[in-house]
Amino acid sequence: MTNHSAPSERTTLKRGVDRGRYAPDDVRAVLDAGLFAHVGVTTPDGPIVLPMAYGVRGNEILIHGGVANAMMRAGRSTDVCVTVSILDGLVVARTPLHNSVNYRSVVIRGEATRIDDDDEKMAALKTINDHIAPIWDTAMPPTDADLRQTMVLTVPLTESSAKVRSGDPIDEPDVMESDYWAGVVPLHTAWGEPQPSANLRHGIERPAAVSALGGTNAHPGAE
Amino acid sequence: MTNHSAPSERTTLKRGVDRGRYAPDDVRAVLDAGLFAHVGVTTPDGPIVLPMAYGVRGNEILIHGGVANAMMRAGRSTDVCVTVSILDGLVVARTPLHNSVNYRSVVIRGEATRIDDDDEKMAALKTINDHIAPIWDTAMPPTDADLRQTMVLTVPLTESSAKVRSGDPIDEPDVMESDYWAGVVPLHTAWGEPQPSANLRHGIERPAAVSALGGTNAHPGAE
Repeated sequence: MTNHSAPSERTTLKRGVDRGRYAPDDVRAVLDAGLFAHVGVTTPDGPIVLPMAYGVRGNEILIHGGVANAMMRAGRSTDVCVTVSILDGLVVARTPLHNSVNYRSVVIRGEATRIDDDDEKMAALKTINDHIAPIWDTAMPPTDADLRQTMVLTVPLTESSAKVRSGDPIDEPDVMESDYWAGVVPLHTAWGEPQPSANLRHGIERPAAVSALGGTNAHPGAE
Repeated sequence: MTNHSAPSERTTLKRGVDRGRYAPDDVRAVLDAGLFAHVGVTTPDGPIVLPMAYGVRGNEILIHGGVANAMMRAGRSTDVCVTVSILDGLVVARTPLHNSVNYRSVVIRGEATRIDDDDEKMAALKTINDHIAPIWDTAMPPTDADLRQTMVLTVPLTESSAKVRSGDPIDEPDVMESDYWAGVVPLHTAWGEPQPSANLRHGIERPAAVSALGGTNAHPGAE
């Protein structure tokens, strides 16, 4: 496996070092369990952060959204930060400044490059569409015109780090015996029952991949 | 009510204009329903986006986290973008390029200023801690030393916009009669049963605010 993520100086965690994870498997596990990314770029009038769909292929993250066009106005590539976060629970400590959350997150810093090759772009769009569930193959094949209307960006996972917090609150030893409560309220995220469109023609069968999603945990793999 | 958010040129949506909402009540509704924010800043080596806890007070958003220190290394204030997103469902269209998600999001652009006054900082920390549930008053009161270890930033909501997508996929008219399925898979996010810490002293009562959270919808208010 050539996939790797060596922490560069700028992705080496300065704080909460005990929570940092650099192994590619950790990064990949969080990316697999996440649903969408927050992508940050620097614009002439300051930073902007927008939610975007994503997919993972080998050692790169693929991002997509109408906003890609605005982001890429400057040219074929741009510096970005792609962050994927999953909230797993509220951590209630005895002292409020130790209140926290259980979470999994990945921060990727690097250069986003536009995919211009049609075949590669089509494959990338399938990867992004299939990230949550494999819904690409049971939909109508896209046309060349569809393809021209959209933009896909790729960012290498080379500079990426994962951070995970799980388990009980950690108060200072001197308050452990106090009369205050401490614990965790877990957060559960699950797909509900698929709802057909109001205008769906009668008799059209629901794709198996959509049916399979209903009732499942949307963020599997929490510790 | 003096709270308002006039769209400036840089928060006026360039795409998906039908989804843009500028009324302060829309921004406030998304911020009230969200759980954490993604905060972007520009650093000497590119943009960075980090998840952070937040609270809302009047016409400002208060953010907090260990990362605040790294972000504010440059001085007392800095340009930021604070984005809060809630995923409400997967939108499965007949054509894959119309696949989408139902979501609610707010983008705030502005200058983050450090709160230095002790009383104001304490009040801001309470607001942030109480955002998900009112857990501040039933915890041990923080000390002055606690206060010095943490940093709180405030960002005005003046330049903010909300964006909401809900309902069925919207395919082109010419594919509405095709044989492909279309619909929505809703995403449900709920708090589970609170779990006491393994090292909690026997006989300590769980705060009512924590008990009340268990079993509730974590993102109320979806359309």
